[in-house]
Amino acid sequence: MRRPDAPEKVQGRALYVDDVHPAGTLYAAVVRSPHAHARIKAIRTDKAAAVEGVWTVMTHRDIPGRNIIPMIKEDWICLAADATHHVGEAVALIAAETREAASQAAALVEVDYEPLAPVLTIEEGFEREDFLAQWKILKGDTEAAFSNPEHVVLEEVYRTPYQEHAYLETNGMLAMPDGLGGILLQGSLQCPHYVQKAVAVVLGIEMAKVRIVQLCTGGGFGGKEDAPSAPGSHCALLAWKTKRPVKLVYTREEDMICMSKRHPGKVRYRMACSKDGVIQAIDVDYWLNGGAYTTLSPVVLWRGLVHAGGPYRVPNVRVHAYAVRTDTVPCGAFRGFGEPQIVFAVEAHMDAMAERLGLDPVTFRLKNLLDYGDETITGHKIETSCGMREVVEKVLEKAEWHQRHQSFGQDTGRLRRGLGVAFSYYGVGLGALGKHLNPAAANVVVSADGSVTIAVGTTELGQGMVTVLTQIAAEELGCDPSLIRLVESDTSRVPDSGPTVASRTTLMSGNAVRNACQQIKERMESELKDQVVPWKTATFQPEAWPAAVAACLGKCVQMSSQGWSVPPKTTFDVDTGQGDPYVTYTWSANTVELTVDVETGEVVVQRLVSGHDVGKIINPQTGEGQIEGGSMQGLGWALVEEHHLKDGRILNNQFSNYIIPTPMDTPELIPVIVEHRYPWGPYGAKGLGETPMIAVAPAVVNAIAQAVGKRLKEIPATPERVWEALNA
Amino acid sequence: MRRPDAPEKVQGRALYVDDVHPAGTLYAAVVRSPHAHARIKAIRTDKAAAVEGVWTVMTHRDIPGRNIIPMIKEDWICLAADATHHVGEAVALIAAETREAASQAAALVEVDYEPLAPVLTIEEGFEREDFLAQWKILKGDTEAAFSNPEHVVLEEVYRTPYQEHAYLETNGMLAMPDGLGGILLQGSLQCPHYVQKAVAVVLGIEMAKVRIVQLCTGGGFGGKEDAPSAPGSHCALLAWKTKRPVKLVYTREEDMICMSKRHPGKVRYRMACSKDGVIQAIDVDYWLNGGAYTTLSPVVLWRGLVHAGGPYRVPNVRVHAYAVRTDTVPCGAFRGFGEPQIVFAVEAHMDAMAERLGLDPVTFRLKNLLDYGDETITGHKIETSCGMREVVEKVLEKAEWHQRHQSFGQDTGRLRRGLGVAFSYYGVGLGALGKHLNPAAANVVVSADGSVTIAVGTTELGQGMVTVLTQIAAEELGCDPSLIRLVESDTSRVPDSGPTVASRTTLMSGNAVRNACQQIKERMESELKDQVVPWKTATFQPEAWPAAVAACLGKCVQMSSQGWSVPPKTTFDVDTGQGDPYVTYTWSANTVELTVDVETGEVVVQRLVSGHDVGKIINPQTGEGQIEGGSMQGLGWALVEEHHLKDGRILNNQFSNYIIPTPMDTPELIPVIVEHRYPWGPYGAKGLGETPMIAVAPAVVNAIAQAVGKRLKEIPATPERVWEALNA
Repeated sequence: MRRPDAPEKVQGRALYVDDVHPAGTLYAAVVRSPHAHARIKAIRTDKAAAVEGVWTVMTHRDIPGRNIIPMIKEDWICLAADATHHVGEAVALIAAETREAASQAAALVEVDYEPLAPVLTIEEGFEREDFLAQWKILKGDTEAAFSNPEHVVLEEVYRTPYQEHAYLETNGMLAMPDGLGGILLQGSLQCPHYVQKAVAVVLGIEMAKVRIVQLCTGGGFGGKEDAPSAPGSHCALLAWKTKRPVKLVYTREEDMICMSKRHPGKVRYRMACSKDGVIQAIDVDYWLNGGAYTTLSPVVLWRGLVHAGGPYRVPNVRVHAYAVRTDTVPCGAFRGFGEPQIVFAVEAHMDAMAERLGLDPVTFRLKNLLDYGDETITGHKIETSCGMREVVEKVLEKAEWHQRHQSFGQDTGRLRRGLGVAFSYYGVGLGALGKHLNPAAANVVVSADGSVTIAVGTTELGQGMVTVLTQIAAEELGCDPSLIRLVESDTSRVPDSGPTVASRTTLMSGNAVRNACQQIKERMESELKDQVVPWKTATFQPEAWPAAVAACLGKCVQMSSQGWSVPPKTTFDVDTGQGDPYVTYTWSANTVELTVDVETGEVVVQRLVSGHDVGKIINPQTGEGQIEGGSMQGLGWALVEEHHLKDGRILNNQFSNYIIPTPMDTPELIPVIVEHRYPWGPYGAKGLGETPMIAVAPAVVNAIAQAVGKRLKEIPATPERVWEALNA
Repeated sequence: MRRPDAPEKVQGRALYVDDVHPAGTLYAAVVRSPHAHARIKAIRTDKAAAVEGVWTVMTHRDIPGRNIIPMIKEDWICLAADATHHVGEAVALIAAETREAASQAAALVEVDYEPLAPVLTIEEGFEREDFLAQWKILKGDTEAAFSNPEHVVLEEVYRTPYQEHAYLETNGMLAMPDGLGGILLQGSLQCPHYVQKAVAVVLGIEMAKVRIVQLCTGGGFGGKEDAPSAPGSHCALLAWKTKRPVKLVYTREEDMICMSKRHPGKVRYRMACSKDGVIQAIDVDYWLNGGAYTTLSPVVLWRGLVHAGGPYRVPNVRVHAYAVRTDTVPCGAFRGFGEPQIVFAVEAHMDAMAERLGLDPVTFRLKNLLDYGDETITGHKIETSCGMREVVEKVLEKAEWHQRHQSFGQDTGRLRRGLGVAFSYYGVGLGALGKHLNPAAANVVVSADGSVTIAVGTTELGQGMVTVLTQIAAEELGCDPSLIRLVESDTSRVPDSGPTVASRTTLMSGNAVRNACQQIKERMESELKDQVVPWKTATFQPEAWPAAVAACLGKCVQMSSQGWSVPPKTTFDVDTGQGDPYVTYTWSANTVELTVDVETGEVVVQRLVSGHDVGKIINPQTGEGQIEGGSMQGLGWALVEEHHLKDGRILNNQFSNYIIPTPMDTPELIPVIVEHRYPWGPYGAKGLGETPMIAVAPAVVNAIAQAVGKRLKEIPATPERVWEALNA
């Protein structure tokens, strides 16, 4: 099926926040801290307020509710009061009749800062023991394993950089009084219910008075999970005060300076293996630079912790994970959610260990690979839907691994070829730490002509949710998909359905849609009795569904329902790190084939094969799109993307100096889909959104290592860094 | 409880259609027929299209779907094609950048008409047997009753005029592409689902692609039930064609010329009584002038038919009812819905018959009054909730009937006092003829802080729906009413819940809200087990509900539901007119005390007592508001409101020449509420919206008769008409 949302996007008629202009809209500007850390001694707004066209200048003193943006903890400040803790932190807000007047006024807000020494690095923060979160896994006897003289032990430190979400559309919000005594926000966002809570808290009103509607959103990738609560709160404050519509759309520079990013990571990875290549133990320290406020760091960190063993059997485990507070922009959700950082270490380390053991990297991995009946490092016994071996087999076949890996690694000219591999697995959904946010809802309303309106609490971000849920509903009801219509996500339609993250949308919203459809079907079956219902006809009959609807409406059958889906139980013991942390896992492997120019250090990727056991693929085209996009985002992180900072200030805050891959950098991308049905998933589906990104970077450094014999322990593998490694 | 929607209205922040201005909105104008009946030979739009700022000129040829506005039948034309059948019928549509350009272009559309002789009156239409609908009731042996020489027989013909709804806000719509491939209409309307169907038909798209959202609506009174489907379709056509927002707001003149009104009525009423005052038979012909198209005439007519006996025992019945087609504006729904016309006849006739029998009008009525165990003229046995006798008792007491009625009627000066009474009963809801539209839905969503968002398919028109449903939800859940929030009615939230008419909203949407709340409560009870739940605490504890919600959300309990309410069975046999046509009845009586100036014919009302058995009053203040407003609308119809037509054209189409009562005309209004619980209603409630209007006019003419000894058989009782009667 084609994407139902494609025509409006292709024809330029989809409505993004900057396409919506109610008459009388005011424009917002935000006054931001130039300091990473400073005491605020005074804020004077009189000059700004005097600018023609300015309606209001607001500071923390003008907040009617609480001056926080609620997330996991309540430490995130909405408007800086006594101090600022990162460059770009919001200090004052302006609403004016034009963007120009708003910027002019912003420049006239006088803030007296007393600069203080900032904490900027993981090392500094760790030394101060200033943690946003800490987790651990302790299993078996690592000490014995590491002290066994028969075991081969290898330890390395790996580092990964910031990554920008680089969504096409920057953050943007439009807030206005709704005429019913509440406030309406429309904007570019992933998680409407997060913004709803934030606005209710900052305005000091009931959540039901805050209605958040997602407009067409030009990409999220996690960057619009927690972060939009800031522009949302700011915009709402201005609209609530002025009683006018207020629009706040970030420039790219502003978005890069003050919005969340992938946490910079550091991993000390130590592994003990028997000489024949069986992993005996791991001992890992895992640090993330969380930035100034907690936001989502505890759960990002936790996902990394849980996956710290890779998809392998590891009997003895010690992992300590730390999210370190620093005076930098708060990092947050990003495709992979704490897992890419640790998987980079795991999979680079697997290659290094294989080399040390004299084993082929695939052989070493297969020897230790998790399979049915095995336990993960948290003690989760794998009992359903583990297609890992099939994924590996197919990926290696498509990559022509055996022929190519043999023949590479012996080039002597300027261009040297390498082929790298990396495996990963990914716990689908929020898992044990996000239990109360796990369920999802769907509202289904059938019209007299049989067309169906569906609202869910998760969002379309370009990933294909609308397509997949349309297919699921049509399949359930036995109707033509053209009759199904997903409306924009809106907090007033369904309860909090958790965030649109963690590759959970097909699984959770898919099951909620099915549940809602099933309620309606049950009522229809009991009314239509012996008649053949549309979802049970041998072949699809387009006229069957509208006819059945008409018959049921004639009998006053309720043709609407709220669906609900609660996933199976998950567990996690905070003292031992043991439990069944996720309901199921997506299993992945990818290879990267590339060429290194030994004179310039430039790496060019020729081919990337990316395979995933997703349980069941609902829409193959959309699934392949996810694989392609995720792979490219992985290549960007692996090869070119990084931020340069000075005194906590990001120096490269535009796409002219923050480099991401372009279509010209795209290698041959080969998606591989494997389907080992997950019984609780809709038609067996699990999740796919994040997995294609996760293991790209280690495959890249593993391929570089094969090509030129140098193992990079830090990414991105820019020409400079590769050249340096070659010439060290 | 205070009205939750009052503050925004009082402070001018409620959003009406003309308060909503998306950037780039185009303005619509409609080219209308100046003829009551004409053949259309040609329509030329080139000059209009050439006006600067005009985006499109559309005629019937440009309709992508079907050229009809679907209502009960499919005879209502969206844009006149070959002929026009009433003055003001739409012929062409224009969208332009300014209102001025749109009007200028409208004047330049050239239509070649060949005028034809129009049919304008009930008599002409009846003679041609051109009926939009016909119904009958045949019960017992009327012939025997009328031919019995012992019986007193009286026959009269009664006439009632057009009435304007005179809502404060004229009809208005704003249509725009929704960015998702569908269309969004916001507007001033009573029945969003009617407009949804109309727009889907005219655009030729699925209903789920048409989203209708009610904005704050400045009054409806039935006038925004069927009629908004016309401006809705027109506006949607222009927005669909131009891909821009298009606004169509009627001027008052336009609204009066082309929008629906109360059907002019004519009733031939013949009654036979035993000499001791027991009604033996009625023989009635009942005509309504339906106008050019069927719209809602069949059901308006039917309600009049069913109530043609008044709240009395009548063993032998013959009623024939006709909705006559004429070349005039289609008449439609209006508070009372076909009942005021016939009740005027019934209750004027009851007084005339009492006089003939030498009985006091109250004594005569009480002798024949329906009570528990009696049957209506359709054979409906009254078994529940009949508080008629208590209503009468209380109304007469408040009116000081016995003292005053005795003392009036003997004035000899210029000002002569009279006291009149009239009884009525009213079948609540749509009844047997609207079965498939009877059910109603409610969507209830509970937020994490315990605040509750409710969406229903019926609408707030100023009548107090939001207040009443808020109270019902708060009562059900045991929470503070400030936590309850009704959102605007929106077709994408709930299935068709039937129209907001027939005094059915408290009953049907009230029960749907309760049903939705009960589903949630059941889940909460099964989770909270032995704990005392908020709705069962001995005294109201404001903190109990939020605490219970938090506990249930922690356990992933589904805190949302779609409620549904299907009323008890109703029946109607079309051949005999027998059955139980409504689920229950509201019982009413009112008195009017007035003075007639015998020199000028002017009638001044001093006091109106209006009593109703509503089962249970949910909000007394709102209920009294309904009684006051309905009474005044009844006085306007009785005394001053009428249209003057020439060749089918309404001559008085402004408030300067169409007169309605003002605050200065308001007498002492005394509401009386009686509560005989209706078991199926929410807390026993029935309906009240329409009943206060129904029996005002006959009480007025009965009071005039007492004052001056002249029985008017036609209203309004303008000074001219009263003077004429006095001087005949």
